[in-house]
Amino acid sequence: MKIICKKSDLVHGVSIVSKAVSNKTTLPILECILIEAEAGTITFTANDMELGIETIIEGNIIEQGKIALDAKLFSEIVRKLPDNDVTIQTDQDFKAIITCEKACFHIIGQEGTEFPYLPEIEKEQSITLSQFSLKEIIRQTIFSISDNDNAKLMTGELFEVKDNQLSVVSLDGHRISIRKLELKGNYDDFKVVVPGKTLQEIVKIISGETEDEVSIYVTAKHILFEFDNTKVVSRLLEGEYYKISQMLSSDYETKVVINKKEFLNCIDRASLLIRESDKKPIIINITDHSLELSISSFFGSMEENIMIQKEGRDLLIGFNPKFLMDVLRVIDDEEIHIYFVNPKAPCFIRDDAGTYTYLILPVNFNH
Amino acid sequence: MKIICKKSDLVHGVSIVSKAVSNKTTLPILECILIEAEAGTITFTANDMELGIETIIEGNIIEQGKIALDAKLFSEIVRKLPDNDVTIQTDQDFKAIITCEKACFHIIGQEGTEFPYLPEIEKEQSITLSQFSLKEIIRQTIFSISDNDNAKLMTGELFEVKDNQLSVVSLDGHRISIRKLELKGNYDDFKVVVPGKTLQEIVKIISGETEDEVSIYVTAKHILFEFDNTKVVSRLLEGEYYKISQMLSSDYETKVVINKKEFLNCIDRASLLIRESDKKPIIINITDHSLELSISSFFGSMEENIMIQKEGRDLLIGFNPKFLMDVLRVIDDEEIHIYFVNPKAPCFIRDDAGTYTYLILPVNFNH
Repeated sequence: MKIICKKSDLVHGVSIVSKAVSNKTTLPILECILIEAEAGTITFTANDMELGIETIIEGNIIEQGKIALDAKLFSEIVRKLPDNDVTIQTDQDFKAIITCEKACFHIIGQEGTEFPYLPEIEKEQSITLSQFSLKEIIRQTIFSISDNDNAKLMTGELFEVKDNQLSVVSLDGHRISIRKLELKGNYDDFKVVVPGKTLQEIVKIISGETEDEVSIYVTAKHILFEFDNTKVVSRLLEGEYYKISQMLSSDYETKVVINKKEFLNCIDRASLLIRESDKKPIIINITDHSLELSISSFFGSMEENIMIQKEGRDLLIGFNPKFLMDVLRVIDDEEIHIYFVNPKAPCFIRDDAGTYTYLILPVNFNH
Repeated sequence: MKIICKKSDLVHGVSIVSKAVSNKTTLPILECILIEAEAGTITFTANDMELGIETIIEGNIIEQGKIALDAKLFSEIVRKLPDNDVTIQTDQDFKAIITCEKACFHIIGQEGTEFPYLPEIEKEQSITLSQFSLKEIIRQTIFSISDNDNAKLMTGELFEVKDNQLSVVSLDGHRISIRKLELKGNYDDFKVVVPGKTLQEIVKIISGETEDEVSIYVTAKHILFEFDNTKVVSRLLEGEYYKISQMLSSDYETKVVINKKEFLNCIDRASLLIRESDKKPIIINITDHSLELSISSFFGSMEENIMIQKEGRDLLIGFNPKFLMDVLRVIDDEEIHIYFVNPKAPCFIRDDAGTYTYLILPVNFNH
């Protein structure tokens, strides 16, 4: 194999596929990037058997072929080369010579044929949306997945298409996040659970521009994201996702309209007095026109008032401050609406259009 | 005590004195910042018994007094307050109430009288230079101090004033760094060894502007840096510093003039093939007009040529790449001059004006 590519194109390609390189594996080939120069196309592939990424690189093929190179070493070399044309040449013993200007590296590769290819995905069920929307939807829900492998489905997100509306749901036993998006086009209904890790890597790769699109294809076992010159294939999580409809109620006893930034900064200040371990709740006292937040811990105490609009009853309720902050950080609205029933029932933060709904369980406290 | 200060002034003051707050100590008072409001001046002080910092804060004194507050907690609270006037009020039980807009924190402090004050420094021997020069001199020498506490003097830097010239020297047994600066003014000669940690904190605090000055005072045991509204006092390291004059020779067999950036980038690339543990040297082969750098390790091999101007003999010599890179990173000149004697003797990197001299020991290698 012999190819000539621009350094910047190599760096871009390596940074995309590196997201699927295995960190700890007993199969050394999974620590490699596969470089293939065939049929006029240069392709980089990485695959940790859960997540696989393939991307096409600009460049000239002088001689066809393929080789698998250690991802970490290849990526470091490519990044540190001068900003110019780079030649990658291999011989029958899988030695690779990487040259750029006067610099010349010799490294040992592995036979490309041993590399596990990405599974072929039948392109039957699909949706298309902007990279911007996909990035936003993931950002606004990913924080409430669980990292506990004992409840495997909680480590992923539900992607459900119904009546041309996409709903994305995550939950961890203390809270639920739901984001809805009207799709432009006619699509078949489907329902899959995508691993959280896949989504975390996808947001790093997609551009987030409104004019760039991403197509999503699903089968019984896999999901494929196709965008620009890149394909990302991931296994799905198997099993029936949690039924959340019975947890969602639109009844409430107290409704609060509050400035998001003021509320977030106030909780952020209050949580200075808490260490992860002591699990102190913040106490929220809602009366007409005013929300008083207070906290008391080993380190001291703090209280602060925020002006609000209120409907319904007065209420005293406690929360884990992190759960409130996680939600407030991802909402872009200046004012938010919070709905409460009583001090033992979850509160809801949602907009009138129904694009987002966040449910948070309160915490018991002594007063 | 009751004072009113701008949030930004408090943040600035806290960030300065925090550099001298003790991290691990058996004396809890050393984890505090002392706030004193007396004689029309608000002062913050921190002191870990090696290094002490005192700075004056703008603000109004409503009631005189002093209190010691936990540095970490106080600093976090101050940073997270709204950007407005902050009132700090204390009572007889050393409780502090910190209020800003509608936020109100209560924290427990300690009696200020227990706090260890900075030692009084007799202002006899002194020099004055710009903050820019001090920052540059430290940056260009601090990398070659040792972190080995067994050779205590190597963990500091020699500051020597002689004939109105300041010399700063650091060494770690493998290399020596020397920076010289002509002082503007007439000063007495002196010679002290300043702890590396003190210098590392000083560069974080001083502005680095050419028009801002810093005055340095020394006694037998202490050094005082005075600038802006701030005083930094540090203990000195005791003992006779190493005699380096006999190691410095101006004889050479080979002189090389090389582009600094090209040389640095080339070594940087080569060192990709080395892991900290395997201590592989880079091999430099100097011939007419060309310096060839090569390295060979478990991970692969690399070679690269750089155009040079050369005087004297050809030479083959090995170096720890880190030692060369450390020096090349801090030199601002575009072209540097390197002087060699033989493959066993140190090389010298120095400018014609003698403002900097770096000595680096070579490494043995098999070829």
